Order: sequence, then structure tokens, then C-alpha cells
Amino acid sequence: MKSYHIEFEPLGRRGECPAGQSLLDCAQKLGVGLVSICGGRGLCHSCRIQVLNGTVSQPTSIERQKFSLPELQEGYRLACQTYPTSDCKLWVPVESMSTSQRTQVEGLELSINLDPPVAVYHLQLSPPSLSDLWGDAERVLEALNQQVHCLTIDIDVLRNLSPRLRSWNWQAQASVRNKEIIALSSWPSRQLGLAIDLGTTKIAGYLVDLSNGHTLAAKGVMNPQISYGEDVVSRISHVIDSPAGGTRMHKLAVGALGKLATELCNMVDAKLKEIVEVVIVGNTAMHHLLLGLPVEQLAYSPFVPAVSEALDIKARDIGLHIAPGAYVHLLPNIAGFVGADHVAMLLATEVGQADGLSLALDIGTNTEICLASDGKMTSVSCASGPAFEGGHIKDGMRAAKGAIEHFRMENGEVQFQTVDGAPPVGICGSGIFDILAQLYLSGVLDDKGRMRNNHPRVRTCEGQPEFVIVNEEERDGRPAITITQQDVRELQLAKAAIQTGIQVLLEAENRSEEDIKQVIIAGAFGTYIDVSSAVVIGMLPSLPLNRFRQVGNAAGAGAKLALLSCGKRAEAQVIARQVGYIELATAPRFMQTFVEATYIRSHTNKGG
Amino acid sequence: MKSYHIEFEPLGRRGECPAGQSLLDCAQKLGVGLVSICGGRGLCHSCRIQVLNGTVSQPTSIERQKFSLPELQEGYRLACQTYPTSDCKLWVPVESMSTSQRTQVEGLELSINLDPPVAVYHLQLSPPSLSDLWGDAERVLEALNQQVHCLTIDIDVLRNLSPRLRSWNWQAQASVRNKEIIALSSWPSRQLGLAIDLGTTKIAGYLVDLSNGHTLAAKGVMNPQISYGEDVVSRISHVIDSPAGGTRMHKLAVGALGKLATELCNMVDAKLKEIVEVVIVGNTAMHHLLLGLPVEQLAYSPFVPAVSEALDIKARDIGLHIAPGAYVHLLPNIAGFVGADHVAMLLATEVGQADGLSLALDIGTNTEICLASDGKMTSVSCASGPAFEGGHIKDGMRAAKGAIEHFRMENGEVQFQTVDGAPPVGICGSGIFDILAQLYLSGVLDDKGRMRNNHPRVRTCEGQPEFVIVNEEERDGRPAITITQQDVRELQLAKAAIQTGIQVLLEAENRSEEDIKQVIIAGAFGTYIDVSSAVVIGMLPSLPLNRFRQVGNAAGAGAKLALLSCGKRAEAQVIARQVGYIELATAPRFMQTFVEATYIRSHTNKGG
Repeated sequence: MKSYHIEFEPLGRRGECPAGQSLLDCAQKLGVGLVSICGGRGLCHSCRIQVLNGTVSQPTSIERQKFSLPELQEGYRLACQTYPTSDCKLWVPVESMSTSQRTQVEGLELSINLDPPVAVYHLQLSPPSLSDLWGDAERVLEALNQQVHCLTIDIDVLRNLSPRLRSWNWQAQASVRNKEIIALSSWPSRQLGLAIDLGTTKIAGYLVDLSNGHTLAAKGVMNPQISYGEDVVSRISHVIDSPAGGTRMHKLAVGALGKLATELCNMVDAKLKEIVEVVIVGNTAMHHLLLGLPVEQLAYSPFVPAVSEALDIKARDIGLHIAPGAYVHLLPNIAGFVGADHVAMLLATEVGQADGLSLALDIGTNTEICLASDGKMTSVSCASGPAFEGGHIKDGMRAAKGAIEHFRMENGEVQFQTVDGAPPVGICGSGIFDILAQLYLSGVLDDKGRMRNNHPRVRTCEGQPEFVIVNEEERDGRPAITITQQDVRELQLAKAAIQTGIQVLLEAENRSEEDIKQVIIAGAFGTYIDVSSAVVIGMLPSLPLNRFRQVGNAAGAGAKLALLSCGKRAEAQVIARQVGYIELATAPRFMQTFVEATYIRSHTNKGG
Repeated sequence: MKSYHIEFEPLGRRGECPAGQSLLDCAQKLGVGLVSICGGRGLCHSCRIQVLNGTVSQPTSIERQKFSLPELQEGYRLACQTYPTSDCKLWVPVESMSTSQRTQVEGLELSINLDPPVAVYHLQLSPPSLSDLWGDAERVLEALNQQVHCLTIDIDVLRNLSPRLRSWNWQAQASVRNKEIIALSSWPSRQLGLAIDLGTTKIAGYLVDLSNGHTLAAKGVMNPQISYGEDVVSRISHVIDSPAGGTRMHKLAVGALGKLATELCNMVDAKLKEIVEVVIVGNTAMHHLLLGLPVEQLAYSPFVPAVSEALDIKARDIGLHIAPGAYVHLLPNIAGFVGADHVAMLLATEVGQADGLSLALDIGTNTEICLASDGKMTSVSCASGPAFEGGHIKDGMRAAKGAIEHFRMENGEVQFQTVDGAPPVGICGSGIFDILAQLYLSGVLDDKGRMRNNHPRVRTCEGQPEFVIVNEEERDGRPAITITQQDVRELQLAKAAIQTGIQVLLEAENRSEEDIKQVIIAGAFGTYIDVSSAVVIGMLPSLPLNRFRQVGNAAGAGAKLALLSCGKRAEAQVIARQVGYIELATAPRFMQTFVEATYIRSHTNKGG
């Protein structure tokens, strides 16, 4: 039987597809996690792919209805409706990937000229003798200075220098940073770097080989400070109210970083002391809490950071124990609530270099938004809260096994897909978005977010209406999974915060939504959402879907860039200085805009 | 009754002397601690003074016998034989001062151009507002950069910056070192420096006002490492043999420095955080043990230091807690057994700038000697041991109350003076020297150091001869104070070590003792000894006494210079690079020279 060779990019998954089998079947067979809520019936339109080359079957009527002509011309198809007629190369857009798949490709992959701050040099020394009585350190510096100008040796390197040189028979490898030896290792040894995106909720770590820029291991862990508050404001309050609060926050963050570094090293059989440089990005509060900086001034107007500029601090001075003299580099902050993670996102997305009007958002517990207009960048910060990450939502959960991640209503019938296809146990962020949009489109929710009793799945529980997604019977007697009126209210506030931020930025530039040429959605949550759902509920501007780019953890990608390139660090400094900042509360008509934005389709929206 | 106004320099003590009273009586009345072993009878010749101006009685026959004509012409007299005939200004040479008096003037007092590494700047800032959202750190740096180029702020300064600026109403004082803010204090605040001479036995500390160079407080404490060995070799052995030995030594030294710093501060009502710079000098082993550097390579040939160059280390990185971002500067070492204390001594004595041939010694448990020949400096290190400081000597003790500090035999009769004139309890270093010289001159000891049974005070105890200085009866039944044959042997080895060092240096330069124009004797012990006794036993070259200068703790004085002047630090680096080092054990005829030097008057000596 005839078969074709199919490649799925950007995953690089390859395999054979027998003639007569759909590309969806082929993807599933090869382990490519394509979203398919309706199970291949052509109903949910979620298995979108793009045919890069090769020939496939003609578009079906379903596809001709779903896609515009330009989209079809660009090769956009539904995988369940398409059959290969030759070898093919396909592109899987991030929005068509299942959650677990997305984490494998998250973050922008950018090409970069390697220019790390730490360079290595091979040393071959002559041993001392009664006629050559130089000290060990001077011997090392002399040999090194024949290759590069170097002035000093870190004290912790000195503390082991003498026995090591002798045990290595006077051969060694020096790691040099800014004219200082920060590590001495046997020759040859690896030089690793650690990039950290220190989020309010999650901490993402990337272990990188500094010699070639390859990411050797990546891992996300919870920020343990979360037990003292889900958002930055409650953590700052804890520090202000509790005498040892600052120390506690500092220790929790550093402890988590140390543990994450150890786990990343274990994944690739590396040692902590091989890490010679760390870059950390985070919002201003996370940055300050990590370093043990004061945060009280962040709590009161005018909300200024203790420090904005980029910092280079000995890792040991914040309690991180890696290569003996290694530094931690922290990208600059912009303002009290627009931090280094935002700078890193702008660095990675290069939004400041785009022509025309661009919008870049990093959606999270705190959402930072930048509007770039031909290089002029202005940013705001919105307290979007934890609802999008499942917090404060009755059946909310993180995107773990069994979480409802996609949801559709077709002729009143409920369809959903769970993470790993497991039996449903709750709803994660992307599912919550879909549900809100679908309930609105099907008329269960009105403009103001009120739940109408016009659907068999709407019921009243403990005095408030709720929509049943999976009932007790479908769960073999366990409690139903529902969205309550209260959940809807939480989500309205969260989306209104973001929508307001966008509106304020547009008004400050005297521009309107339609002028936006691209919308870059960064952050883990932004990666998982169905953009069309976010547009339906008015959170994102009503623009053609091809103007949106979901780029994953761009802050993490920016941290990696800064890890690998001094030039990128300099760029980050320029970005931090150039970005204008608007304090939302001081914006004209702020409250009015916010109240309007709580409407699911608000009057300020084009489509309203 | 007629009286004259008398001034005693360098103490600056002044008062009236009635006509007919000797200068010795006058000194005692004014609390000037002149040595007077014979009680003013003109027998011991120890109360030498110099008349700087004014007129006094004619020299007595005793003085004409004791002093040369040039000495008399220069105004040298015995205080007990001299009576003022007008107002007078007198100079008390260090060798005529009692021990407790000497500690008050110890150390060279050098004039110096103040050029400390830390400078202070006054800052008056405008507070942030919603229209001026700069971070606190940027606000400080901006204001500072209008006065001086400054790039960074120490992380520990940052950790308190924000609340302090607010409590000080946006006015502050910045301490800047090498483009870094290392401390921020309220305006105006003191800037203190700490100079430390970290000796094997004693640690001397000087608290200095960096704004004017004045020494505010000085204090000496024991080095607590002494419980792990009196000399450097036994401490190094302890570190090699014991897994936690290095950490233990490091902690003991740092703990002592911290305590000493606190005590110095308490003496002048200062705070530790006012100390913005520290300079530490010590021999190479003390330097390494303090910093936690490896010492094993110091124990085996070719005995090289882990590091020789000058170091600037954050005080916190060695465990010292003073101003938040303060540094410790360590002067450079020369070799494994010639350390930064020697460099500091050479810096303070400026021996490298003297014309002709000069010898400079710092006598201690380890004695470093430098021979300077028209700027060319060569040094050796001698293991002189603890005998001079009372160690390994049966009735040896430190120069505390009741210690016999001066000793004479006049016509077979024993005369001595104790510290503070208290009843005798033991013998301190200077007394031991005197005793050895006097026993030799009176024939009780022969050339080889054998004790002859030719004096009523020589007796045999536990099988060995001993000389009784104070017998049981004179001590009301308590044990006698004696010098045993074994004590003499210890002292012979100690003095031979030093004598050999001098000989090796002279031979290397092909010069002889008589060519030496000046001998500078540094160190606490060197300050207390009677130089003529040291010449008698052959330890010091047989030269006219006016070629000797006892300068006290020159290493401490050098540390103070380096504390107050970057120029002096640079000079120290040049000295460390220029000094040639001879490893004694490799010198030609070393053993032969040493054996000969154990003779009290050895054959290699001019007078032998």
C-alpha cells in the first residue's frame, strides 16, 4: 500500500502516512499532540495546520467555510479533513498543539551571535621550584595574561587553587569574566549558564551550554512564596507586616532557585559548579524579594523600585552556590510594577524594532503590556490576578493531566478535550477562556456576564447559577465540574484589567485597535489560550487571527539571550531606558474604561 | 624655691622641676617611665636621655666614662646624673623607656599625604513623585555622578537604601571606593579605617579617622590560633592533619579581628559600620589562614604562597561585618615565609630609599630581615621561635606587671627592674636578653653557652645548672625565678637563627657588618630589648649604638600608611616585586654559619 513521508515542524517529528489516512490520524500515530476536540469530525476547527510543501487533497466544504481564501492559499487546512497525495512538510501552529506538546517548544528560538560574559582559557603552567618561587595565583595570572587581560582571582577560587593545580598537574581551565577569574576547572570542562524566569506563580529555568547556546535542560517549578500570597501585593504586605517577612521571602526564592538548578543539572548529569553565569528576570517585586531588597516603597505611591538598573551580583551574595566566583546578572527594571521580565520579553520579541503598531503582552497574575509604535515603546502593568491560571475559580486547576484545556459548544452540545486525554478533573486556563467565549456565543451569558437559565446544563447551586460541563453521573458519582456565576465574575475582572491596559495605551498614542499590525502574546498562559476565544470575550483586540503570535515564555527566551550575549544585555539596558511607563491609576478615564471593559463585549470594543 | 619648666619628648609630658632635683626624679614625678635599674645610683646607665635645648649641669665622671665625646656633644646624658639649670626640652630614646611607656608611642609616626581609597560625598536628593518615577538607586547615582564618576552600589547597601533615604529625608552621605558605593550613611558621618597587624602571637589593631589620619584607638590582643601551635609551622601542620583545621584557623582569626574591631570602636564610642576600609598585614601563613587559603604548599619545598599579589576582598567574604560594602585590602606577600607584614615594615621604614647599607629586622616568633643596599633589597626569614617572647623559657612570661624587663650584674651583684615596679613574677623578653648578656660578660656563661659553677647564684636543680635571679627567700617562699641551662640553649638557637640570617644576607651582597650604616629594629619585641645586650650576645652586628633605631610596630605603621594612601599601596606593590628573597636553607654554608652562630660570641662575628 502506498504511503508518504510526512514531517511535522517545528517539532521535527517524521514518519510514514499510508494513502487514505488523514493528517490528524498520522499526527496522532506519530505522537504529535494536535488539538482535536470533536474527535476528527470537522466540527471544532481546532486541528489547524499549514502545508509548507508537498501536495494534499482538495479543501472540503467545511474547510472552505472555516478558512478565508488567502488562508487556504497559504496552505492552512484542518488536519482531520486533509489527506496527503505526496511527501509533505507541515507546520503545526502553537494554537493547534496540545498543552503538553506546547511546553516542549515554548519560548522563542532565536539565532544569536554568541558573546557570553564568561570566556574560557586553557592554561599549561610550569610548576614552581626553588629557582621559580612565584605564588600559585601569580603563576596562573601570568599564563592567562598571555591570552587575555586579567587582573584578579575571586577569593573562593583562590581558596582551592593551590591543591587543584597540583592534582591537575599544573594544567587547568580558567573561566574569566570582566578581567576576573571566577572559576578554575580541570581541562577540558563544560561551561554552563542558567537562565531563570522568576514568575509570581512559576519559576522557569533553562540550563544552557555557553559554548554553543544549546538549551540542555528546561524545567518549571512553583514559586514557593505562593504560600504567602498569590499576587505580588499580598507578598509585599506580608513583608511589611512581618519583621522577618523579607528574609523569609528571600530564602524561599533562593531555596527554590538552588533546588531548580540542582534538578536541571541532574537532568543532564552536570554539576552545579559548572554553572558559571546566571541571568534572572522577574517582575520588580520578585526581583526585589529575591535579592532581599526593601519592598515597602513598592506598596505606596509613587511605587518606585529600590533599584532599576541592571545588576551584577556575586551568586554567593544572594545565597546561590554554583561556580565559586560566578555572578548573577539581573536585567533592568522599568518601574515598580514593570520589571525585568517585561524587558526580557521585549528583548526576545524585538517588538521595538517592528514597523508600525505592535502590541506585546505577557499574561500572568500580573500582566504587562507594551505598545510599540515604530520603535517608541510604552508599557502598563495590569493586576489581572490568578483567575487565568485556575486560581479563585471553583473547579480551576493548572494544566495537568485531566484538565479541560479546550471547549466547544456545537448546537448546544458540549465538547471538550483534556490534557493527555485523561478523564476530566477540572478546568485549566485555556479551557476557562473557551468556556467563557462559548457560553457567550451560545447566549448562556449576556453582555454583562449574567448567566441565563436558557440551557439544560444551567442549574442553581447554593443560591447561584452554574453551568455544568461534566455532571455527577458522567463522573461516576463524583462532584460535577461546573463554571459558576462567581467564576464568570472573577474572569470578567481579570480580562477587564488587561483590556483596560490595552485601551489606555491606545488612547495615549491616539490610535485604535485596527491600527495594530501584530499582537505578540507571551507567557505560559498566553501560549495555551485559544486566541479567538480571547477575542470573543473582548480581552484581545478584534483583529484577523493572523496578526496574533503566541510566542511562549518570551521572558525566559530573553533571559537566555542575555545569558549568551553581552550585546543583548546592552540592548536590554537601552530598552529599559527607552520604554515609557504609564501608571494605570493615573490615566485619564481609567475607572470608566475599566468598568466598561468588564462587559463581555464592551462598548469600547470595535465589535460591540 | 627656683624651678624650671621641663618637657619630655616624644611623649609631650611637661612639668616643673625644682632646682637641685635630678631629671630622673622629675621624670618619675611626671609619670615619664624612664628605665632605672640601679635606682639612680649611676650604675646601670639605662636612664639615658638627650637634651634638645636648655642648659643642664656639667657631665659627671660616670657620664664621661659612659658616653663618647660626640655623644656628650649631641646632648646625651644620664637622667640620674643631670640637673637642669634652665627650662629644658628633653628627648627620651625608646631604649630608655619602660615597657608600658613604650607601648604608648610604638609605631612610627609618619607624615603622609591623605589619599585613602574611600572618599565621601554629600547627597541632597529630590524625592520621587508620580512625575519622577526613577528608582531610588538611580536617584542616588545620578546625584553622585554630578560630583564623581560612580557606577554601582554594593548589594548590601542596596538592601537598606530605600527606607534610609526616606527616614533621612532624602539627604545622605555616600562612601565611594573605585566607582562603587560601599556605604550610605546619614549626613554628616565619620569615616573610619582599621589597620591590623596580624602577628603569629599578637594582633595589633588601629582605628583611624580617614578624614585626618589620626589614630583614635589602638589595642593589642593575643592571636587565639596560638592554642593550635605557637609558631606558623605547627599551625600549618594542624591544618594539614585535621580536616576542619583550615576552617577552624580561619574562624579563630576572623573572630579575633571582629572582637578587636568592636573593642576599638567601644573605646571611642564608634560603630562597626563606620569602618569603611580595613588593611591587614601579616606573615604569609597568617595571611593565608585568615583568608581560608590553602597552606599545604607552604609546608613543602619550594614553599610558595597560594597568592602573593595584593588583594581587595569584600569584608563580608572573610566574615568581617563592618560597613555593608567595605573591602579589606591585604598588602602583597613576597614569599612563603616573607609576608605582607615585612612589606609593611619596609614601607614604613623606607629602608629601600636609604643611602648605603641598611638592615631592617622585625623580630618575632618568625624574624624577617631585609638588607638594603642603595635601594636593592634582599630579605630572608628566620624561624627564631617563641623564646624571645617568653615561650619555652622556664620562668618566661610576657611583658606584664611584675615581669623582669631589665637586668644588670654589677660586681657580681644582681640588679633588675620589673614592669610597673611590681614584685618580680617572671622574666619577659628584654630581661631574658639582658640576663644572657650579663651572664656572659660576667663569665657565668662561656662562649658555647655552658653555665659555669663560678658564682654563688649558680646551683644545680633537677640535674641541670641554673642561675638564680630571685631566690625562694626573696619571694617569701614561693619558687625561685631562675635561668636554666636549657633556657640558655633555647636562646642560643633563637639568636643564632637571626644572626645566621644577617650573615647570609651580608655574604650574598659580599659586604661585612661594619658597612652597615643603620640597623632598624621593628616589632614589639625589638622595641623592648636593650640593643647593647643583643650586640653582646652577637645577635645584632657589633656597631656603634647610634646606628640602631628601634621603631616599634613598623608593620602596623605600614598598615596605617596603606589605609590612608593609595599611593602607599602602590609603593608596597613595587616593594614586594623588587625585594629579592633568599631561602635560607639553600644558602651556601648555611648549616656551618648557623652552628657557629649558636656560640654566644661566634667566630664569624667581628668581635669574636
